[in-house]
Amino acid sequence: MFAQGVSRPSEELSHAPRSCPTPLGTCPPPELTDVERAIETVISQFHCYAVKGQKEYLTPNEMQELVVQKLPHLGKCVGPLEEKIECMGDPNEAKLEFGEYWDMMGDAAKGCRRK
Amino acid sequence: MFAQGVSRPSEELSHAPRSCPTPLGTCPPPELTDVERAIETVISQFHCYAVKGQKEYLTPNEMQELVVQKLPHLGKCVGPLEEKIECMGDPNEAKLEFGEYWDMMGDAAKGCRRK
Repeated sequence: MFAQGVSRPSEELSHAPRSCPTPLGTCPPPELTDVERAIETVISQFHCYAVKGQKEYLTPNEMQELVVQKLPHLGKCVGPLEEKIECMGDPNEAKLEFGEYWDMMGDAAKGCRRK
Repeated sequence: MFAQGVSRPSEELSHAPRSCPTPLGTCPPPELTDVERAIETVISQFHCYAVKGQKEYLTPNEMQELVVQKLPHLGKCVGPLEEKIECMGDPNEAKLEFGEYWDMMGDAAKGCRRK
């Protein structure tokens, strides 16, 4: 059990935001525009939370953790998290890849625009 | 001609970035997270450039202007702008709505991740 806990640290939902360095530090030059920095931020948080999937995908718990911690004001625009997690299928196999994560952030953005 | 120039200021491509206030100033509370601020930035730039469409859509020229000015390092990940503009159809009628704009930003993000 301990070994499982160590190998899947993100499977226990925490309410403390993660502190992660920007993983794209070597990618964008320093003179990024505000929009490019914004895109980089959204990417970096995906990488930060995608621990089990090694920056390739979020597990349902990682997704939930990210939404709770990083979208406290816009999370409701994403829709009910329980439904979203159910739609992902078997929790031990389910993966939210980057494109789906970007779409989810788009739902939050559309919700914010409607306010 | 002058009247046309006044009514459609965005139809002449400029290389000077626009300076716009955050249009969602009344929407999000001040304690936004970094991800929420990033989403707000991407939204605000859409609103800033969507002059003709009154924050509802970008014309082809407005889209081009935004990509040139705001995505100088990631714009190539969006793909050839000329092709994108052609795909939008008649330049006098073509509209890029917010959802399509968000998808375009997603292409830039995916390109950045691949770097």
